[in-house]
This record gives sequence, structure tokens and C-alpha cells, in this order.
Amino acid sequence: MGWNRKGKRVRLLTVDSLQQAREKLRSAAERKKMELEFIELNQALGRILASDLVSPEPVPHFRRSTVDGYALRAADTQGVTESIPVFLEVIEKIEIGTPALRMVQPGQCTYVPTGGMIPEGADAVVMVEYSEAFDETSIAVYDSVSPGRNVVAIGEDIREQSLFLKKGSLIRPQEIGVLSSAGIHTVPVYKPWNITIISTGDELVSADRKPGPGQIRDINTYVLEAMSRKYGFKTIETQVLRDEKSLLEEAVKKGIKTSDLVVVSGGSSQGEKDHTAQVMDEIASPGVFTHGIALKPGKPTILAYDEQSETILTGLPGHPAAAMLVFELLIIWLYRAMTHQSEPKETLAQMESNVASAPGRTTCLLVSLEESAEGYTAKPILGKSGLMTTLSRSSGYTMIESGKEGLKQGETVRVVLL
Amino acid sequence: MGWNRKGKRVRLLTVDSLQQAREKLRSAAERKKMELEFIELNQALGRILASDLVSPEPVPHFRRSTVDGYALRAADTQGVTESIPVFLEVIEKIEIGTPALRMVQPGQCTYVPTGGMIPEGADAVVMVEYSEAFDETSIAVYDSVSPGRNVVAIGEDIREQSLFLKKGSLIRPQEIGVLSSAGIHTVPVYKPWNITIISTGDELVSADRKPGPGQIRDINTYVLEAMSRKYGFKTIETQVLRDEKSLLEEAVKKGIKTSDLVVVSGGSSQGEKDHTAQVMDEIASPGVFTHGIALKPGKPTILAYDEQSETILTGLPGHPAAAMLVFELLIIWLYRAMTHQSEPKETLAQMESNVASAPGRTTCLLVSLEESAEGYTAKPILGKSGLMTTLSRSSGYTMIESGKEGLKQGETVRVVLL
Repeated sequence: MGWNRKGKRVRLLTVDSLQQAREKLRSAAERKKMELEFIELNQALGRILASDLVSPEPVPHFRRSTVDGYALRAADTQGVTESIPVFLEVIEKIEIGTPALRMVQPGQCTYVPTGGMIPEGADAVVMVEYSEAFDETSIAVYDSVSPGRNVVAIGEDIREQSLFLKKGSLIRPQEIGVLSSAGIHTVPVYKPWNITIISTGDELVSADRKPGPGQIRDINTYVLEAMSRKYGFKTIETQVLRDEKSLLEEAVKKGIKTSDLVVVSGGSSQGEKDHTAQVMDEIASPGVFTHGIALKPGKPTILAYDEQSETILTGLPGHPAAAMLVFELLIIWLYRAMTHQSEPKETLAQMESNVASAPGRTTCLLVSLEESAEGYTAKPILGKSGLMTTLSRSSGYTMIESGKEGLKQGETVRVVLL
Repeated sequence: MGWNRKGKRVRLLTVDSLQQAREKLRSAAERKKMELEFIELNQALGRILASDLVSPEPVPHFRRSTVDGYALRAADTQGVTESIPVFLEVIEKIEIGTPALRMVQPGQCTYVPTGGMIPEGADAVVMVEYSEAFDETSIAVYDSVSPGRNVVAIGEDIREQSLFLKKGSLIRPQEIGVLSSAGIHTVPVYKPWNITIISTGDELVSADRKPGPGQIRDINTYVLEAMSRKYGFKTIETQVLRDEKSLLEEAVKKGIKTSDLVVVSGGSSQGEKDHTAQVMDEIASPGVFTHGIALKPGKPTILAYDEQSETILTGLPGHPAAAMLVFELLIIWLYRAMTHQSEPKETLAQMESNVASAPGRTTCLLVSLEESAEGYTAKPILGKSGLMTTLSRSSGYTMIESGKEGLKQGETVRVVLL
């Protein structure tokens, strides 16, 4: 570590491992506050729960039948078979949605529809198929049941005062169901990060223009905006800039005022016009803490932090495929950690062929998954890292640790779906 | 099959297998038109591509360098080593985004930055690290390269006139990247299905009310609306109805006018108030073709079709967890098939314990996935099918075919994530 005259850390040209970069990023953003907000239940899909939730009441709050049948005392059916029925008096017929009023005594029963309320005294339900009307007020029962049979107990779905959904849970349709059954119709969720997306490069033209010789269309803005949308961030601004330091300064200064995350792509190679790290170091304090990651693709990645505005700044590779992977491996990784989410489930697959690793670097290998008798075969997607179609042809990626020599044909790998 | 006096098929109380129900559903909806619409690229995330896309131009449309270095003729570097350099005249310095103007002849080279245009005549790039300035107009090169080295050829990412994205592709951020690089900024996607969601039951109160004895909160409307949102459908209307035939008739009649899909949940058990199949058969023509599926959970499922309005009608189980699974296994299955999507990737896991199957029925077994040395262990989530928390505690489900005796501890299963 070194410090320059202004008391800022001087950027040293050492390269971090992915693990080191993640640890530094985590520790830099440690004091960043994660805000929460309350939203309506029908808007909560895809959001991340920001508090543990304790149920204010049991679900169900009354004993329910899972079948159409007769609620009775299980003891009354002891020894009953198809040929030796028991005869019970029917004392009430419950309508769905209405309370059961009369207590079931020995020798009695009550008709209950599916979902209906089990009366006091009864402890089991015999399905209507195992009964027969005997006379106007009684039935014959041909089945022996044990206590609890065909009954959902009070709190069997959600116990009163139990922690039924944990902070960090992704709200899927099933969580919407659980929340609505517990009567929670405003939900505490993490406020999405605001993001400013800046793409730099003198070669960039907007996607609706035809590029001239040497020019290409801006892809990164679209890809990063889509990534942000996928993970629920709020894009505050996108800018495509010529590679001039003053323009970048202005954009980054604006970005840290409005955003939790300022993402600059392009301009982070070792080329002549590399302003990104310099600008981030000048504007943010403590500034850049990672410049270069031993990761393939993604070497020219820059990570910085500004304490006052609590803004994370990152310089991503100019290649869109690499930019997207680094965004996933670092920024989304951090967001998941800070919102207490679990890692996404991976898919296991067997390698179709040998793959060499990059010496001294962690490799993020794109693969497509193909059905096989045992499950899936992972077919490596080869092609230069600048090619966008390598990503659209892939199902996901698998990581090869830097110490590992490569992957062997038939070896089982874990694939993260993209 | 039978026909009643009005010339309608009479519903027979036979139960379909899941496979039969799917085939009937597919064939009933065979002539349903799938409409497409054009949307802006930055709105296309998560949508399904409705046409094969052919690239109007090659990407890149000029040869690009993947490194900062010198573009030259590979033949000039033959036999070159670290100790035996070749000296080349530097005839031009390309700026990023500008055309290369001068043709490289033998003995010459041109400086090209990463992403810059390779000049005519050159066929490879030597990284700047393997060169040294010799005098004002020439450099020493210390590396031997083969033709094509560090060069992205014209059309290497997307060939001109090639089919680069297939109909049915889910548009992920990487597809956004590919579309923007091909200059496509309006995208043909399937128009989402319109859906009407009807929940029936005298026991239902809305989620913001406290249910009385025998009453429960409406969960299905929330769960099904979230499922629709998850898969990009457009919810036209939700209705919670008391279990009266005339109310249901009115709602279904309205639904088939406005929607591709009318979903009724509740009222499809064998209970006394089962109007759903009757109403669907009266309103839709040809009407109900499946009433009951040999599926656990999901037995009381109803499927119907109305040819004139091209509407799919379904009666789902009243239990929200069962309703959600049946919606996934039938409606979403159909939607994927009709939009040419591939099946979602599954995760392989080893069963934690033995699980019995339901005789004569396909079982949809909920499991939670837990990390293990080999990958994942699938832990069966037990609990009555009416319990919503069985779904929120699960990572996904695995299917046990009806002929299969059950699952054995350690057996490998395929888990569809939910």
C-alpha cells in the first residue's frame, strides 16, 4: 500500500484473486446501509424480504377438514371394518365458511365439507365414501380412523408467533401465498439499488445507428441495463460517452450523488486512454481498492468505494460478455450477500471434453447444457471473450479455480444458470 | 364419450393421466393463434422471441483487434524469438473508432488498440508487450504469431444472413446484447396471454380482513396472479366469488370475451357445490375435455376449451399449493410448448430418504435442496397438500411416474426449481 500527497491510497498494479476482490468489496461496502421499504403484497413478486417475519396468528386458525366427510371421535371407529360398521347420529351439517356450533359427543358425528370447520369434540374425519345413510338422522361408518386423520390442526401450516419467512427470502409466487395466508398485505423488502450506467469509447454509436468503419454499436448499456432490471435494480441514468476524462469525471460525480452503484464499462484495459481508475480515485474516497482481477474473462476490472455517498464504483471490461460476467460475479454476488440471499442453485453436469484452464487465473467457463442419460452434458462454448454470441449460446457457466489444471472429459461440474 | 340432448359431450367421470391431460390440452388449443407484437429492445427482457432472427449484417463488420498491439503480416514474424526480433516500419497509428487507411505491406505494421480496426494487408496482431520502440518510425517484435492471432474476423460473432436467435428463445440480458450488436432495436415477441382469475368459495375473505370461524383468507388469487406475472401473462381481472352458479356463469362469460385463459380455483372437488365443470361445459364449446387427473396433488383439475373465442378454461384445486403446481404443470407447460420454449433446466439431486408414491397416480413431490459433497440432497417436504408453507419451504419438485413404486434413499432425481 502507498499513499499519495493528498492522503489517498496510491493504486498499486497488483492483481487480486476473485476471492480477494470479493473480500475487499464486501469489506469496503460493509457500512453501506441497506434501506428497506414497505410495498403492497401484489407488488412484492421478485423482491427480497428485508426482515424476518413472525406470524401474528396461527394458520389455519380453526381445525379444517381435508375431505368431504363426517367429523367424529376416532375412538368410536375402533374395530370398525367394511363388514362391521358403527352407527352414528348426525347432529349437524356444516356449510363451508360457517362455524361448527354443536359439540360432537361419543356416538355422534357432523357432516363437514372439504375445508370446513371441525366441531369441538371431534378429532378425525371419515371420508363420505366410507359411510352410508342409515336413516334420517344417522349414518353407518365403514372405516376405522386414528385421531387427526383428515384434519389440519390449528397452526399446522403456520404456527402462531413462529418465524415463517426469513430475511433474504426471494418472494416467489409461493411466498406470496404464504404472506397472504398470514394476512400480511404490506411487505418489508429491500429498496432496490439505484444504478448509473456509463459506457465509454470513441468507437461506440447508439444501437439504432449504422456504425461506420472502425465503429461498433453500444452493447454494454443495453446488457447492463438488462442485468440491472433482471436483479431488480433501478436504473437512474445511462450515458454513452466519448473517451474523455472530463466527460467521465462529470458523469461519475453525478452518479455518486444519485446512485448506490456507478458502473463504467470500456476504458479499463491497459490502453492509452484508461481514465476510469484515475477518475474513480480522484472522486471517490477511499477510492480504488482493486485494479485487475486474476479472472478470465474480466482481468481489467476496477473496484472502488466512496464512503460519504456510500457508492460502489466499478470499471468493467469493455467486452460486453466479460462485462456481464464480472457484473454477475462481483456486483450481484455482493448484492446477494448484503440482502442475505442464498446462492442460486447450480445444475450438475458432466464435461463433454477436456478444457484447459488459464494459468494463475480463475476461469469462468461458459457452457451449454445438453440432455444426457445421466442428466446433462456440459459443452464448453469456445470463442474469443469479445463475442456476445458466446453468452447467448450458453446455458450458464462453471468456475475453474486458479490452482486447478483444467477440466477433464466426464468430470462432474457445477453450472450456474444465466 | 357420450352426447347429451343439446349435442354437447357429456362429461364422463374418468380420470386422465397427466400425459393424457397434456395431450388433450395441446390438441384442444391447437388452432389457438399465438399473436406477436413488436417491442423496443430495452423492454424485451424476459419476453419470448416470436420469430427466427437472421442478421442483416455481419458482426463485427470489420476486423477487430482483441489486444493493444501491432497489426502485421504473420509471415513477417516467422522464426522470431525473444532473442531474434524482427524490425518493422510503423506506418499508421489507429485510433479507436476510426478507420485504418493504409495497407500493411511486408516489413510494415500499424498500431491498433483493443477493439480497433485491423488494416488491409495485416492478418495478425502482436501484443504491445512483445514489442519495443526501435526508432521514431520502427519497432522490434519479439513474438512469432500465426495468421488470425488476436484478430476477430468479420462475422465471427454473427455471420451475415445467419439465423442467430431462434423463435422461442427467452430474452435474457445476453440476448439483449446480441440483439443490440446486430442492430435490432424492435423485437418480435409473443403477445402475453390475457388471464382472468376467479376464486370461488363461501369461506373466502379478502387478504386484508380477519377471517371469522370457518373462514379463511383468499390465497389463490394472489398466488395465481403472481404466477401469471412470473410468466409474463397479463391479468385482466381477478374476482373472488361466493360459490353460486349464476355468479360463476357471469364471470366465466365475461372472461372468455377478454382472456386467453380463464382460471377458476376452488369448487372443483367432489363436494356438493361443484359448479365449475358444469358452467364451463355450458358456456364453452366443445367444453370440458378433462375432469380429474391422476396426479397428486391436483386430482380435481378441470380442463376446457372454447373454440370460438380461443379461450382455455381450467378449474384448479382449491388448495393453493395444489392450484399452483397444476397451473405450472399444465398451463405453463402448454404456454412453453405453444411459444416454442425449451423446458427449464433441472437440477440433479440424491434423495435423502425413501418416499412412497401414490398408487396409480403421478406424484409431484416437493423437495428442498441441500448442499452435499456430491452436489445436492433432495429432502422431501412432507405435509398435507393444503399447506401453503410446503411450497415456500421447497426449492422445487420432482415427478414420480405413476408406474414407479416410489423413490429410494440415494436415488438420483431431477428437480425442477420453482
